[in-house]
Amino acid sequence: MSDGGPDYAQLQAQVRAFVEARQWQHFHSPKNLAMALIVEAAELVEHFQWATEDESGQLQPAKRQAVGEEMADILIYLTSLATRLDINLIAAAQAKLEKNALKYPAEQCLANNPRRQDR
Amino acid sequence: MSDGGPDYAQLQAQVRAFVEARQWQHFHSPKNLAMALIVEAAELVEHFQWATEDESGQLQPAKRQAVGEEMADILIYLTSLATRLDINLIAAAQAKLEKNALKYPAEQCLANNPRRQDR
Amino acid sequence: MSDGGPDYAQLQAQVRAFVEARQWQHFHSPKNLAMALIVEAAELVEHFQWATEDESGQLQPAKRQAVGEEMADILIYLTSLATRLDINLIAAAQAKLEKNALKYPAEQCLANNPRRQDR
Amino acid sequence: MSDGGPDYAQLQAQVRAFVEARQWQHFHSPKNLAMALIVEAAELVEHFQWATEDESGQLQPAKRQAVGEEMADILIYLTSLATRLDINLIAAAQAKLEKNALKYPAEQCLANNPRRQDR
Repeated sequence: MSDGGPDYAQLQAQVRAFVEARQWQHFHSPKNLAMALIVEAAELVEHFQWATEDESGQLQPAKRQAVGEEMADILIYLTSLATRLDINLIAAAQAKLEKNALKYPAEQCLANNPRRQDR
Repeated sequence: MSDGGPDYAQLQAQVRAFVEARQWQHFHSPKNLAMALIVEAAELVEHFQWATEDESGQLQPAKRQAVGEEMADILIYLTSLATRLDINLIAAAQAKLEKNALKYPAEQCLANNPRRQDR
Repeated sequence: MSDGGPDYAQLQAQVRAFVEARQWQHFHSPKNLAMALIVEAAELVEHFQWATEDESGQLQPAKRQAVGEEMADILIYLTSLATRLDINLIAAAQAKLEKNALKYPAEQCLANNPRRQDR
Repeated sequence: MSDGGPDYAQLQAQVRAFVEARQWQHFHSPKNLAMALIVEAAELVEHFQWATEDESGQLQPAKRQAVGEEMADILIYLTSLATRLDINLIAAAQAKLEKNALKYPAEQCLANNPRRQDR
């Protein structure tokens, strides 16, 4: 399933090494990491706050690069938090998808989807 | 480097299939996904808002499970946004780490770290 | 200029009394209050995350009521923070408006406004 | 109850005039205003993300000024949203306090408050 690129475990090790080299783990309580993460999430939101939905899907290259960097920052803090709490982030997301599939059955969601395109 | 567990590319394919089965991609403008992501980030913050830093690092199992599910939701929306914008999220995070390493040189950060433990 | 209704100073006194009656001021460090405030802001965002801009401006009464309660929660935490930091919130907002007026001259903003309606 | 300072109705009129002079009301859908508001809330959070709770309560003058400006920005967007939705913000906050008083009875909250100081 992988395209042979870097995988998540490699990134997690790199993030950990980055933090430890600066001894920033002493700031990395889950409370603080959650705050840092939402600050980065807001920097992502800021790119889109005055854009229409259409405009937000047609980014110029420089904007797309900037958006990608905000997304990277979110993943980096999310990864530090996963390390701190000893949570397997990929497995947690897969388990949540399975839970969501029970909560939001595909047929029922399709039937009620006001933006459905296939009819 | 991988531990043989599921990798990120597999998760991304699963998230995409989940969304397409419900035709939710028609709601998934980057503007909307950024909003959904920050809402999940706030649900993470909510777990820690009245906790001390120490308490936030000593979670009971039920709380840790709930926190993990909020983290999963964040990763799921981040992944949908990466798919929508055709951004390689893992590579973007690695590139951002390299950029951060230039901005925050390890030696200088260590020297200025008020919570440094090794002296 | 007032319509004779309750003014902000009255609200601030009521918020303070509410907090002190529960001794919650001991949880109300600025750090914690900022977290609580952004959680409420996200509950506001959640009402609008899948809505179009147009839909967000045409709320049914029950939704408008719910949105008003989230806005109330934001103002309540903002007021507790103002009390905690001894900041005159109304005066701070007026000073910021004056600063913004210098940063964003009206004529220049009008000339560059892509959604301007009067021409 | 007022100290004779500016009241909220005056601020609301000033915010409205500021927006209309730039014709920014055409960007001010509730969806967009909620996004702008949470971005300002995150700028507030950013000031406190690595601070301890104690440090967050002992701000130097320049930091306190900066924090006050973020609080002002939040109130300004909250006010624009109240204008847009025709919601009386002060009255909404007072109504929410009354609702909260029923949900969180003072005696019970005091009895369960782990940070209570008076015993």
